Amino acid sequence: MKVGILGNGNVGGGARTVIARHPCGLEVKKVLARHIPAGLEGLVTTDPAEILEDPEIELVGEALNGLEPAYTYVSEALRRGKHVVSANKAMICRYFTELHALAAEHGAGLRFTPSAGGGIPWLVNLRRTLRCDRVTALRGILNGTTNYILDAMQTQGRCFEEVLAETQRMGYAEADPSADIDGLDAQRKCAISASIAFGIPVREEDVPVLGIRSVTAEDVQNFAAMGRICRLLVQVEEVAGAVSACVEPALLLPQEIECSIHACDNCISLTADEAGTLRFSGPGAGAAPTGSSLVQDMIDIAALGKAACAGNVVLDGKAVLGGDAIHSIRHPYYVRSQGKVPPELVRGGAGSAKITAPLTPQEAVQLERKLHRRDKTTFLAAILPSGKGNI
Amino acid sequence: MKVGILGNGNVGGGARTVIARHPCGLEVKKVLARHIPAGLEGLVTTDPAEILEDPEIELVGEALNGLEPAYTYVSEALRRGKHVVSANKAMICRYFTELHALAAEHGAGLRFTPSAGGGIPWLVNLRRTLRCDRVTALRGILNGTTNYILDAMQTQGRCFEEVLAETQRMGYAEADPSADIDGLDAQRKCAISASIAFGIPVREEDVPVLGIRSVTAEDVQNFAAMGRICRLLVQVEEVAGAVSACVEPALLLPQEIECSIHACDNCISLTADEAGTLRFSGPGAGAAPTGSSLVQDMIDIAALGKAACAGNVVLDGKAVLGGDAIHSIRHPYYVRSQGKVPPELVRGGAGSAKITAPLTPQEAVQLERKLHRRDKTTFLAAILPSGKGNI
Repeated sequence: MKVGILGNGNVGGGARTVIARHPCGLEVKKVLARHIPAGLEGLVTTDPAEILEDPEIELVGEALNGLEPAYTYVSEALRRGKHVVSANKAMICRYFTELHALAAEHGAGLRFTPSAGGGIPWLVNLRRTLRCDRVTALRGILNGTTNYILDAMQTQGRCFEEVLAETQRMGYAEADPSADIDGLDAQRKCAISASIAFGIPVREEDVPVLGIRSVTAEDVQNFAAMGRICRLLVQVEEVAGAVSACVEPALLLPQEIECSIHACDNCISLTADEAGTLRFSGPGAGAAPTGSSLVQDMIDIAALGKAACAGNVVLDGKAVLGGDAIHSIRHPYYVRSQGKVPPELVRGGAGSAKITAPLTPQEAVQLERKLHRRDKTTFLAAILPSGKGNI
Repeated sequence: MKVGILGNGNVGGGARTVIARHPCGLEVKKVLARHIPAGLEGLVTTDPAEILEDPEIELVGEALNGLEPAYTYVSEALRRGKHVVSANKAMICRYFTELHALAAEHGAGLRFTPSAGGGIPWLVNLRRTLRCDRVTALRGILNGTTNYILDAMQTQGRCFEEVLAETQRMGYAEADPSADIDGLDAQRKCAISASIAFGIPVREEDVPVLGIRSVTAEDVQNFAAMGRICRLLVQVEEVAGAVSACVEPALLLPQEIECSIHACDNCISLTADEAGTLRFSGPGAGAAPTGSSLVQDMIDIAALGKAACAGNVVLDGKAVLGGDAIHSIRHPYYVRSQGKVPPELVRGGAGSAKITAPLTPQEAVQLERKLHRRDKTTFLAAILPSGKGNI
């Protein structure tokens, strides 16, 4: 099958290289890039029409960043009946419903495994599970930069700023690291995963998020005194037809699998009625892992041919998004702040911090906002029950 | 697609129930069982011909135990061009080459994900990876009973005999638990996994194995003093074209992911050139998980139809099996024995036990046999290097 690749950066270039190294029935006919690198004059173009309007190209891999022009290009490809594989989490998350409607209308396959979990075959296995099972919960680590920071702070006793600067030098974190450390990257991947699991469009803004920007070496010492390790955790669950989702720093017992996830690795699990809890871990980013994940989705589509559309996600879930009133996720929180935690919420202390009564993630986000007005260094983390370890 | 299921026990019955609960395009036309349960008179038969000779049945799920009559039935199904999905590790392992040749000859699909890792989508993801990547190593836990025993001994300080009896009461271990505790069950799953990964037929007898029959509470205390946790570990690697494989108790650092695998769960990883290290964990046995894994393989075949055969494992590996001379796996061993360890092999001690120079698994098995003549309670475990933790 002849394919075109939109983007020649980390992921797009990675996919191109993987196909060149491992013959797999795919032929890269054109690659779209901003500049044409020396030696790739015949292959690389700066004109998207050379991919989108070429009837020989049946499948488009999209590895651009951000919403535009990615959404315009992908929509055009689908309208022309081309299959699409995307690594672009921002675009997939924002236009989940629109893209699936377009793909269905034009009989095209749409896959995006590399958009959540990097090189881990997470979304493809989540979809595979759903064919004869019912998923009830998701949980895990979907951001490598914050995992690197939290792991290094815990195992090496270093401070947040120092480790963050290290991740920037190593090229893991951007110059503006907000999307990582404020949890927004994980929030998108959580929304995409939840949309697939429950067949309803979950948007970024439906997922309450607490980041790790304010975590200190003193906090990590407090966690250790509590016998806990901190990870930035994605949690999604369905209870009585209502889906709740959140991203937050979570204090886990050391025997939990997420505490064995080191450096930039990701780890994500699903819990289903029949299969039980299945966990997937591996590199959450990187040119070769994420590029090869893009190629694997392409091979799946090439194997299915015209039937690829039948394997798309179907948005027909009977569940609804849990609002404040029906949010089933509820934990006590570790709160360190110079601001005043309402006394009726306080249940105990941990070093200089307080432990609250059980709150929903939305309530925790509201509390953080309030405390933030007095103390910009306020930090909150959910304290997970020990029994939850093996979901 | 109309399917027949050979076997109505744990896995076969599990698969039948999963299909009944989750409409997935499969229709169970007949189930073979020794006895016909009340209420299933129309569905269940005691005559294999009702499945094997029915031209309407395009796909056979095999969930029998042992080599015969399973091999005869499955061969007959393949000869008639029926696709086969098998959960039978003993049969798949022994007749790996013969079954793949038959399937290729008759254009039939052959899958066996539930034969290694129970409900974990392990073999299907290993095969998916290989389509555009080169796998260089496998490692993990593929036996739930021994993991339960080792985990309970470590976390609860209990003795081997007591925990083994508990696993028998709970139905995890057989009345004769030899296949589990002597490592033979893991040996078969290791051989099947290695055969797929390297495209060469690896037989059970190619995999040196040390079991955990002799491990004591005192050993576990010694491991703790060394800062280690014991797991029964499958290891496979390819170095310079030679494949080495083994199953042995291994002493790991607590931060390794296998130490976070508790109770009967399994966890298995692959390391590949492009994808890096991908890890898969979940329930290694059980009616619903293993039954649903059988059904998932069936759905894969139904989606591919006549193309299913093209997705079979191809035995065309360029690697060779590493014999004694080219065995790349080599570790120091913990040895507790009243027998005499040759002094030239001793490098140190751990409580009442000795630590050896690095040995290949074959050399360790030979040493165990020799020591066993003097002391039937001899126990050996490989001491893994800390750097190996994240393969």
